[in-house]
Amino acid sequence: MYKYHKKKKVCSVHNSFGNFFRITSFGESHGKMVGVVIDGCPPGLHIANEEIQHEVDRRRPGNSELVSDRRESDHIEILSGIENKYSTGAPITIIIKNENFDPIIYEKVKITPRPSHADYPALMRYGKYVDLKGGGRFSGRITASFVAAGAIAKKILTLLGISLAAYIRSIGPWEDNHEYTVAEIRKNGDALRLMNPEFTDRVKTTILKAKSEKDSVGGQVTCIVEGIPSGKGDMVFGSIESRISAAMFAIPSIRGIEFGLGFASTKLNGSQNNDPYMISEGKIQTKTNNAGGILGGLSTGMPIWFTCAIKPTPTIGKPQETVNLRSMKQTNLRFEGSHDPCIVPRIIPVIESLTSVVIVDILMGNGDIPQIFNKK
Amino acid sequence: MYKYHKKKKVCSVHNSFGNFFRITSFGESHGKMVGVVIDGCPPGLHIANEEIQHEVDRRRPGNSELVSDRRESDHIEILSGIENKYSTGAPITIIIKNENFDPIIYEKVKITPRPSHADYPALMRYGKYVDLKGGGRFSGRITASFVAAGAIAKKILTLLGISLAAYIRSIGPWEDNHEYTVAEIRKNGDALRLMNPEFTDRVKTTILKAKSEKDSVGGQVTCIVEGIPSGKGDMVFGSIESRISAAMFAIPSIRGIEFGLGFASTKLNGSQNNDPYMISEGKIQTKTNNAGGILGGLSTGMPIWFTCAIKPTPTIGKPQETVNLRSMKQTNLRFEGSHDPCIVPRIIPVIESLTSVVIVDILMGNGDIPQIFNKK
Amino acid sequence: MYKYHKKKKVCSVHNSFGNFFRITSFGESHGKMVGVVIDGCPPGLHIANEEIQHEVDRRRPGNSELVSDRRESDHIEILSGIENKYSTGAPITIIIKNENFDPIIYEKVKITPRPSHADYPALMRYGKYVDLKGGGRFSGRITASFVAAGAIAKKILTLLGISLAAYIRSIGPWEDNHEYTVAEIRKNGDALRLMNPEFTDRVKTTILKAKSEKDSVGGQVTCIVEGIPSGKGDMVFGSIESRISAAMFAIPSIRGIEFGLGFASTKLNGSQNNDPYMISEGKIQTKTNNAGGILGGLSTGMPIWFTCAIKPTPTIGKPQETVNLRSMKQTNLRFEGSHDPCIVPRIIPVIESLTSVVIVDILMGNGDIPQIFNKK
Amino acid sequence: MYKYHKKKKVCSVHNSFGNFFRITSFGESHGKMVGVVIDGCPPGLHIANEEIQHEVDRRRPGNSELVSDRRESDHIEILSGIENKYSTGAPITIIIKNENFDPIIYEKVKITPRPSHADYPALMRYGKYVDLKGGGRFSGRITASFVAAGAIAKKILTLLGISLAAYIRSIGPWEDNHEYTVAEIRKNGDALRLMNPEFTDRVKTTILKAKSEKDSVGGQVTCIVEGIPSGKGDMVFGSIESRISAAMFAIPSIRGIEFGLGFASTKLNGSQNNDPYMISEGKIQTKTNNAGGILGGLSTGMPIWFTCAIKPTPTIGKPQETVNLRSMKQTNLRFEGSHDPCIVPRIIPVIESLTSVVIVDILMGNGDIPQIFNKK
Repeated sequence: MYKYHKKKKVCSVHNSFGNFFRITSFGESHGKMVGVVIDGCPPGLHIANEEIQHEVDRRRPGNSELVSDRRESDHIEILSGIENKYSTGAPITIIIKNENFDPIIYEKVKITPRPSHADYPALMRYGKYVDLKGGGRFSGRITASFVAAGAIAKKILTLLGISLAAYIRSIGPWEDNHEYTVAEIRKNGDALRLMNPEFTDRVKTTILKAKSEKDSVGGQVTCIVEGIPSGKGDMVFGSIESRISAAMFAIPSIRGIEFGLGFASTKLNGSQNNDPYMISEGKIQTKTNNAGGILGGLSTGMPIWFTCAIKPTPTIGKPQETVNLRSMKQTNLRFEGSHDPCIVPRIIPVIESLTSVVIVDILMGNGDIPQIFNKK
Repeated sequence: MYKYHKKKKVCSVHNSFGNFFRITSFGESHGKMVGVVIDGCPPGLHIANEEIQHEVDRRRPGNSELVSDRRESDHIEILSGIENKYSTGAPITIIIKNENFDPIIYEKVKITPRPSHADYPALMRYGKYVDLKGGGRFSGRITASFVAAGAIAKKILTLLGISLAAYIRSIGPWEDNHEYTVAEIRKNGDALRLMNPEFTDRVKTTILKAKSEKDSVGGQVTCIVEGIPSGKGDMVFGSIESRISAAMFAIPSIRGIEFGLGFASTKLNGSQNNDPYMISEGKIQTKTNNAGGILGGLSTGMPIWFTCAIKPTPTIGKPQETVNLRSMKQTNLRFEGSHDPCIVPRIIPVIESLTSVVIVDILMGNGDIPQIFNKK
Repeated sequence: MYKYHKKKKVCSVHNSFGNFFRITSFGESHGKMVGVVIDGCPPGLHIANEEIQHEVDRRRPGNSELVSDRRESDHIEILSGIENKYSTGAPITIIIKNENFDPIIYEKVKITPRPSHADYPALMRYGKYVDLKGGGRFSGRITASFVAAGAIAKKILTLLGISLAAYIRSIGPWEDNHEYTVAEIRKNGDALRLMNPEFTDRVKTTILKAKSEKDSVGGQVTCIVEGIPSGKGDMVFGSIESRISAAMFAIPSIRGIEFGLGFASTKLNGSQNNDPYMISEGKIQTKTNNAGGILGGLSTGMPIWFTCAIKPTPTIGKPQETVNLRSMKQTNLRFEGSHDPCIVPRIIPVIESLTSVVIVDILMGNGDIPQIFNKK
Repeated sequence: MYKYHKKKKVCSVHNSFGNFFRITSFGESHGKMVGVVIDGCPPGLHIANEEIQHEVDRRRPGNSELVSDRRESDHIEILSGIENKYSTGAPITIIIKNENFDPIIYEKVKITPRPSHADYPALMRYGKYVDLKGGGRFSGRITASFVAAGAIAKKILTLLGISLAAYIRSIGPWEDNHEYTVAEIRKNGDALRLMNPEFTDRVKTTILKAKSEKDSVGGQVTCIVEGIPSGKGDMVFGSIESRISAAMFAIPSIRGIEFGLGFASTKLNGSQNNDPYMISEGKIQTKTNNAGGILGGLSTGMPIWFTCAIKPTPTIGKPQETVNLRSMKQTNLRFEGSHDPCIVPRIIPVIESLTSVVIVDILMGNGDIPQIFNKK
């Protein structure tokens, strides 16, 4: 019998996101599966399994020398909410079973936590019963569930004429500062969403070098959303930036976010940074888009763009200093499991997916999503 | 393709923040007042009016040549929830009446919206009835309500042994990259939280130059939180970063946020960026704190630190290009009202305040705030 | 300094209601005022102070020999969100100052709690700092804030062609089981919404008898909502019943609720209770409306009706047995303050108000409220 | 007057319940499965599959002549959040696959909706894509997911020394007005929680008679919760009644709820209904418990008890009048599928389960659930 008083308590209801189009993520990196429940999808949305599978495949490991060689077929399975390829209005549940895992190598992370991983704080937060195999709930693997949900959101956006794409802005020291449109990215981007051949070479060289040195490398991803009219979003705590950033920081390894010029704007004067209004093709636009398409938390009608900072993968093969939590002595750690020398390429579809979820959530709250999707 | 427009509905329930310690902001820049309701403050917290007033005074305009000369006494008034200087457990309501305003100069923003202000998207979002005098709900003035709420949160944190301070990391091109502790900032910082005399001179010169040129300048603010034990925060969407960033982007002019090294970490290898564990004074710490005190969304026990990018104030005296929404023709605009040449100094207490609100909300959800504050 | 660990905690964020049209109540019975923040009201709603005042006056004490003689002018004051009689889309804050109170007589409730009042459990929940003067947050007085919010909601419903009215179904043993329409109630009801002269006499006699005996009496109130089309509401936990009942039980003294036939339906066979469908005037209706206009949590298109059970006011002048919490001995209590011999008449506008808030919240979530109210 | 129709948007995020211990239900009556995600369960809770299975079996059909003969093994499967019989702190997902169904007989409900079922309003709300086979999301079958979640909640309550039990108070006209304790119910109750032999006979006779007449019968269920100390729950909208009632009305067929004496208290004077305080065994108790253990929305320390009204099952074999939605003509309907002549016995574990979920949610918010369950 537990004593009633003098207890600490936990409130860990933090696996859901969204007010109107809400996703609830579940599953663990090396448990049976990862999955998601999507509540709030209007009925009548036509969505084929292949469309979801296509998005999930984009973040699948093992499909390139640049990423982890963990083998996962990542086959999606729909448990509820879709019947004959149409959403019914009931919650949509999608799972992706885990196949390839070796729990033994993860046994020791509860004793000698990996530097810059969630191991140590997770142990302090959730105690000895926490599942940290492969990072458990803190693993990048749970983002597969975000991508499955994002596929539904993306389909809705397509029907509204909204498109989005993310691409690699930098890897390590190398940057591609060209501004691309969604169309350009879709047309010219390769599997890693790289468009500039010179930059592509540098990216690949940098990642493979890190891999050969049993090290890792970080980078930045820019996401562009086109087709959102002006005046979408909400005031104060409902700002587009608040909602996108809250979602992005659920992705492991993201350490910063900036909208439009972001940090660069802090170096400018107002007269340089302000975006003058103009009329173009009878519509109100801005001459520049330093604001990233957002003012006062609301859309201006210009493309929304923002950039995420992704740290180098903490999992590296090099020996690292850590602490043995039992002996409370310093020790060394060398990690042998499968891992990505650079997580940036695989994060691209995750950023696109969660952004899609956020945009659908915002537009639903703004009354812009049909109650029922009917064929026309 | 579905037609995008002609769907109508508004869901603007976005003036509240927090799950366990929830603030609800109300009021307008040039209405009667700004105010806040704080729901979830435990009873028995001793808080004197002066403590709240002190924080609110820190962001008050008109107290330096570096900031707006708008005259506001910013006198706080407690409407409910506190009796004889003790919280009762009922919602705490605090208001700050507006005194100095001239609605006439704001009439025209609905016709010729100011570049890089919320005027145009707010008009598109909320229609002709929206109150845009001085920015209405989109004005920096509403942050006074955040500061009033933050004073309560800060008092709670003090009782828990948690302290925090924000300071100016950069103004325009000038940076102060020294890492300060909360104690240093409190001891050595001047009214603007500037500590390095050389940097201070540059800051003042830069702001006054912008002012004399009827222009404005941006900058960066770093916030440090000390005293949070390891293992606080929540998984996935409950990450500390998700919650702090969601709050920060409710502050007008904030365009980016990074935790720890943030964007700089993207240039490093994992072996450089990872923070090795060590034992110091019998406690587990990290040798470096590139992570900003957060791993997997949870606190590591090291100080939490993050940096916000603040754009140059969009309100400038220089003539700017805009559009007349009635005639749909290009036109020029020259703004004459009171404004800040640099909002960075006044944002410091706002960042501290909302951070305090977020930390209290997190710790409440983690069961770390007493049910009742009793004297000992 | 509080010790960090081994603390209990409180999560009292329970003064708000609604997902899309959210009210946040604040204030105490014998503090400075009671008030409410309404978040989510679309801009452009025309609402005069008098319309709000009219509703608030309906529950004002001191206006009849049947109710409490507490003197309150209950003058409403709008602090934010309404400009020139039009909502702006910003949060609407309304306060009602308290005028008549005598804190001294309430001193003793923390020592000798009144039977069937919240005194004792509130003291156990919130500790010695809790404000229990006149019941504090547990007083019927806070429902004045519900009525102020309800006036806004009611105005919205009127624009949508939805009307509602509550009336007394029973007082003590006397029942008026006639089914009235909203039009009949509005046309024929007196100040207490009584329509049947015989029943009216019994009600008045019963209440005055209780008053003369320093006792109190309970009753039932039925509320009818007309004009909601079929197919409104939401599945599972979003049922109309879930949301109305959750709101109703925030009203002190309500002890039960039933929709349509409610408890009486438990005595019937399915073939008696089921409402057969028919076509009337080209529309699908049901021959009977035992369901109270709700099936599966969704509206059927028939009038929604439900009945609330209101216990006799616990405040009575008769001596009662209680316990002295200091001496832990039995003692007697005789209460002398102003009180209502029957709260039922004054609860009518409160039930109407919160029902209006709930219906607006439901319809907003269903996309049925215009984004902006524009004159036509 | 604003035109009512032609506004379009859906917000159907209504499949979750709870703030601190949140369940998200998914699945359909005749889809692949029903399931639930439980977010917020502390790590370290020992829970065996059999414990969950045991609760689910209690509401399983086909186990008595008194209930539906639908054949379902109702085998539970845990997808996430539990490892080696201990919760890990990650979301717990449990599914129950559907086995026995015949979609053909449900085809016609979209054309000729069944009286007093959700068919017609669900069609109006969600459109032609809605899954109404066996009621879809509106079926009693989804309550199996509530029971699975309730098994977890019940285990937590057991560790806190809190016990609860529901029993049949009435079937049709027959009542058992004896007040039972949880211990008595558990000790003496049969499979249907019937304790009084005379009442048992009447119940069985009444249900079998309804069955033989192809009709159905309703009843009432009382639920008792023992062991909750005084001062639990929250003010205003956080009242225990608000939260229990909101949960109960998610159960199909529940039409009313009353706490303690409820509707009967409306017939009493205050001096009769008030519960005098007394000291018994050194503890403060009330002589009577007409309040049902709740005052001001907070627990008094006495057992909490409430009663739910359950309408007769709308599915009956007798011919009924309905409307053909295509031809818009009146027609008759005779339903042939499996159904319960009385749903009351099978609702008992559902009421217990959702009540357990609510109580755990309340106690978590009150800081009474350990952060981690550790063996002692």
